[in-house]
Amino acid sequence: MIIVFKPDASEQDIEHVVDRLRSLGLKSQVTKGEERIVVGVIGDERVLQGQPLSVFPGVESVTPILAPWKIVSREFQKQDSVIDVGGVSVGGDRVVVMAGPCAVEKLEITVGIAKSVAQSGARILRGGAYKPRTSPYSFQGLGQEGLEFLAAARKETGLPVVSEILDARDVGYFLEHADVIQIGARNMQNFELLKEVGAYDKPVLLKRGLSATIKEFLLSAEYIMSRGNRNVMLCERGIRTFESQYRNTLDLTAIPALKELTHLPVIVDPSHATGKWNLVAPMAKAAVAAGADGLLIEVHSNPECALCDGEESLKPSRFHDLMCDLQKVARAVGRDL
Amino acid sequence: MIIVFKPDASEQDIEHVVDRLRSLGLKSQVTKGEERIVVGVIGDERVLQGQPLSVFPGVESVTPILAPWKIVSREFQKQDSVIDVGGVSVGGDRVVVMAGPCAVEKLEITVGIAKSVAQSGARILRGGAYKPRTSPYSFQGLGQEGLEFLAAARKETGLPVVSEILDARDVGYFLEHADVIQIGARNMQNFELLKEVGAYDKPVLLKRGLSATIKEFLLSAEYIMSRGNRNVMLCERGIRTFESQYRNTLDLTAIPALKELTHLPVIVDPSHATGKWNLVAPMAKAAVAAGADGLLIEVHSNPECALCDGEESLKPSRFHDLMCDLQKVARAVGRDL
Amino acid sequence: MIIVFKPDASEQDIEHVVDRLRSLGLKSQVTKGEERIVVGVIGDERVLQGQPLSVFPGVESVTPILAPWKIVSREFQKQDSVIDVGGVSVGGDRVVVMAGPCAVEKLEITVGIAKSVAQSGARILRGGAYKPRTSPYSFQGLGQEGLEFLAAARKETGLPVVSEILDARDVGYFLEHADVIQIGARNMQNFELLKEVGAYDKPVLLKRGLSATIKEFLLSAEYIMSRGNRNVMLCERGIRTFESQYRNTLDLTAIPALKELTHLPVIVDPSHATGKWNLVAPMAKAAVAAGADGLLIEVHSNPECALCDGEESLKPSRFHDLMCDLQKVARAVGRDL
Amino acid sequence: MIIVFKPDASEQDIEHVVDRLRSLGLKSQVTKGEERIVVGVIGDERVLQGQPLSVFPGVESVTPILAPWKIVSREFQKQDSVIDVGGVSVGGDRVVVMAGPCAVEKLEITVGIAKSVAQSGARILRGGAYKPRTSPYSFQGLGQEGLEFLAAARKETGLPVVSEILDARDVGYFLEHADVIQIGARNMQNFELLKEVGAYDKPVLLKRGLSATIKEFLLSAEYIMSRGNRNVMLCERGIRTFESQYRNTLDLTAIPALKELTHLPVIVDPSHATGKWNLVAPMAKAAVAAGADGLLIEVHSNPECALCDGEESLKPSRFHDLMCDLQKVARAVGRDL
Repeated sequence: MIIVFKPDASEQDIEHVVDRLRSLGLKSQVTKGEERIVVGVIGDERVLQGQPLSVFPGVESVTPILAPWKIVSREFQKQDSVIDVGGVSVGGDRVVVMAGPCAVEKLEITVGIAKSVAQSGARILRGGAYKPRTSPYSFQGLGQEGLEFLAAARKETGLPVVSEILDARDVGYFLEHADVIQIGARNMQNFELLKEVGAYDKPVLLKRGLSATIKEFLLSAEYIMSRGNRNVMLCERGIRTFESQYRNTLDLTAIPALKELTHLPVIVDPSHATGKWNLVAPMAKAAVAAGADGLLIEVHSNPECALCDGEESLKPSRFHDLMCDLQKVARAVGRDL
Repeated sequence: MIIVFKPDASEQDIEHVVDRLRSLGLKSQVTKGEERIVVGVIGDERVLQGQPLSVFPGVESVTPILAPWKIVSREFQKQDSVIDVGGVSVGGDRVVVMAGPCAVEKLEITVGIAKSVAQSGARILRGGAYKPRTSPYSFQGLGQEGLEFLAAARKETGLPVVSEILDARDVGYFLEHADVIQIGARNMQNFELLKEVGAYDKPVLLKRGLSATIKEFLLSAEYIMSRGNRNVMLCERGIRTFESQYRNTLDLTAIPALKELTHLPVIVDPSHATGKWNLVAPMAKAAVAAGADGLLIEVHSNPECALCDGEESLKPSRFHDLMCDLQKVARAVGRDL
Repeated sequence: MIIVFKPDASEQDIEHVVDRLRSLGLKSQVTKGEERIVVGVIGDERVLQGQPLSVFPGVESVTPILAPWKIVSREFQKQDSVIDVGGVSVGGDRVVVMAGPCAVEKLEITVGIAKSVAQSGARILRGGAYKPRTSPYSFQGLGQEGLEFLAAARKETGLPVVSEILDARDVGYFLEHADVIQIGARNMQNFELLKEVGAYDKPVLLKRGLSATIKEFLLSAEYIMSRGNRNVMLCERGIRTFESQYRNTLDLTAIPALKELTHLPVIVDPSHATGKWNLVAPMAKAAVAAGADGLLIEVHSNPECALCDGEESLKPSRFHDLMCDLQKVARAVGRDL
Repeated sequence: MIIVFKPDASEQDIEHVVDRLRSLGLKSQVTKGEERIVVGVIGDERVLQGQPLSVFPGVESVTPILAPWKIVSREFQKQDSVIDVGGVSVGGDRVVVMAGPCAVEKLEITVGIAKSVAQSGARILRGGAYKPRTSPYSFQGLGQEGLEFLAAARKETGLPVVSEILDARDVGYFLEHADVIQIGARNMQNFELLKEVGAYDKPVLLKRGLSATIKEFLLSAEYIMSRGNRNVMLCERGIRTFESQYRNTLDLTAIPALKELTHLPVIVDPSHATGKWNLVAPMAKAAVAAGADGLLIEVHSNPECALCDGEESLKPSRFHDLMCDLQKVARAVGRDL
């Protein structure tokens, strides 16, 4: 922590801050520059989180030096985390494609799509049973029954299943039926839910919030990991910007930036990010080229009749073609699908 | 709903869309312009929510005409909603100031601050028992005990109490101890929580999400109201932008814009928005001048030692001065404190 | 400047940076913390601007301590700057309203509006002769003739005139006909234009760029002032965010934040910020309550026929009512119109 | 154009709008829906640009149907534009890499870097002679001399040259010394400069403004093309968002989105977008995978001593490795370097 004092700060102001630091077990090093006095904090500055040092008389600014997280950081663990999802490794050499319908609708449709994406090379089945919808009048998902349909599709195809949880009270169903619990963008800072899924070792796919910084994203992962669950995957799914030509702005720079800061796998969801099926393929390829460990792609056998997000769903044949293209891009960057 | 077709759309493409509309009970009016064919939908377009019409062959764009909400709208109810909060009217002639500490810490401190803000003219006590913190290592609030301290302060001062809920499982405590349940910015789209508080008639203060549009904000209010709870107050608390000089960008234009669209009261929180105590007073005055029905202001007897957000807390004497200034501004715009 | 090293930085890495600092005439103070080594720079860190220290081996981050500007800062000049605009003081006790049409259209209309706003209490006439339009097919302004119409209106009413410049080659016309040269939001970082207007002492109204930070805004003012022109007024006119309900998001927090950092007057333009006439009055009042030194308001005698921005123009009668309301708000915050 | 009326709009209100449309040579089709009356405009709605129809009594909203641009659109020209830059085709099968120093410093350094990037496969030399710097105290470029150094490097290597113009008064130098005139992000809406470069047929590289929408970006291109210059290349270089972990947010979705709307080539600048050399390679690969027609990459033989943007410059050996990797990615998506 670096504390910069205003030009008119008094000796007393500085002493006051140094005293507080001392009382917290921290040492100070005072540097008198030409225009400012600066106090450097020696010791674990994390004890200063939430300490309102900037409100102390004479203080101009306070800048932390250390990252506020521990377990998620590359410093804590140098080698990449590889998460085992029902036998599929996420975070290793192979790029893992998770595909399926936005919302689970009917058993046959779900199983049909699952078979189709499996044949095209997807290795995990995605599908929403509980749907977070902006409007209370939109289809809210089948709930528990949806999870059962997904489990049935898994039985049929062997594909492990990822599905989104909305309510901490439903964790039991997810432990039973899902292989990965997804925390959606809107719940990235639903801290009670993070704590809840942190209490088990079931893999968690944590999506970045619509306006979450990389720092906040990693701190939400830290919430889960600090409770004991080490099986966390991060998912970039587009951030909110001023641009309205597409639903969100897919922030692919987050991939290499996260890889530098954390050992956790990074997944990308080009379907939700763009909101338009014809933008999904180029962004999926770009994500793999940028180093993504996996993709989350929406596929529906009949997008015109999808109950949710039909606009961004690929038809099975288009998904099949995309998988061929992705294989080539993956190899171009030294990986495999 | 207005559906615009691409220049190369076929007769069949148009027929296909008109058929779908017909099957949903809607009529179509086809207009052939010079460069585009346009289909206008006649009937309640809300049945089209979630219908992926843009994915139909030949469709270029789909534009809704009606607002997606009902109960929150000015069209549904012309006169302003006035919410009764333990005897205090919110949304009427008088601007209501809700003040208190960011986090509830100790009983005596809480009661002391409550007495102080009451004497300065605050009419509702605010205080956080459950705290949503970005980092898992920050103070997370006293929980249930915090609610009890607030209830004790209410008993002492007569001030009704507003406090934030984080978890649907805690609703019982809030029904018992709080007069207003606050839904924080991070939970504005925690739809399960919205549904839960919608099931009672306890007043709800709904804060705008960090990157929530006015539309999404109103739809979240609609979630609560469509479940039966009509006692909803909206709270603007700053949105996330590129500017980092202050914590968030307080969007005061939202006040008159919301007033035009909805009958619900609009509250403003300049403390969280700015994150700096010295910016609170000017923004509080600006909010009242722009037509806010109430303010949420953080006050702490000793900001240097506050366990949460000391940077933005006003000392009681500064709060007292601010209340005098606010009274003048309120009168200048034809209201009263 | 504070330079933080990576945990695995070598002695040599630190020596390498210290050497570079020394060669630039700066001293270093090395602090060995528990997890990081930190080098504090002693001396005028402005010589480091543009020095890519972060690219040196072993460096983790580089944080400046001093503001990058000089002349615009409160440290450089403690008392508020008061700018004389043809006899009208901007930045003093009285809030100055500058009103008029978005674009200058015809001589009689311009003079008519000027008379009307003068009667209502406006003290400076605004009007666009050169118009920066998003589309090449929109009305681009009358150019030089427009400036002459404004000068004629000044002659008729005594109101000094503010008008926007787009091209450094036109400076001569502005020196002759205008009392304030406006640099629009789109040209806030047109550095050649800033340098040009910096070469004279004609007052400049510098608008904040659509996505300019407070820092960039002040650095653009510094461009003008470092060339010798000390008559600079800053103007907040809305920033670009994700919200599309109104044209831009008026950032009123910028007023007190700028007042802390700089001695220059701060003007607010609620007309361009909101883009809707019915949002102008509440935001104008809010701006005055927050401490603005002046307002820029669009008024048109016949908004339906305005060639530019009719949507946001007030009719003269509405402007007259607003001026009465603004007087009350100004007095409530200890000022006058 | 679709004009929606408020529920309480009168017959007279509608007649008033229809009259105005008629006077502009446009026909109207009135549709009476269940909740709203809607007027569709038949004819070239571009004559309505700047018409403030939303200010007419009774009007609720106005939605354009046609794109506001013409010449840049795919509708105007179906096949991709291929721009000839001194013998190098941009927009064709081969992805074109433009590389070189951020700022031109010395003749030998410039020629040295030019030779090096040519050997690695770059086909155009980039270099800044006039530098738009946020601070007036930063290195502002060598100006005309810099252009001459670039021309000398071209002579030595055969690489055509791209360089940024800041001032319309310098066009002559650029016509003489440069092969492509670059308009930087800060000048994307410097309309006088756009008009100036539109008057010649020298190729123009137009960078997207920091907070420019796709629509505004295309309209700026339309400014140039409507003046006669058809040799326009678009360049995505990162947009401004709330994320501060990297300089800007590279918006790669803009590539396929632009390709759908326009026939112009799309270039990507990962160096300026990220601001960090170690993020350049993954984003360059991602851009090619997403369909970019070219890349703009900063290379410097000694980034530690670069006078501008050393943080984001690749050393020649790293650039060489990147070119090998890019070749693989280009082939994976059916192109070549």
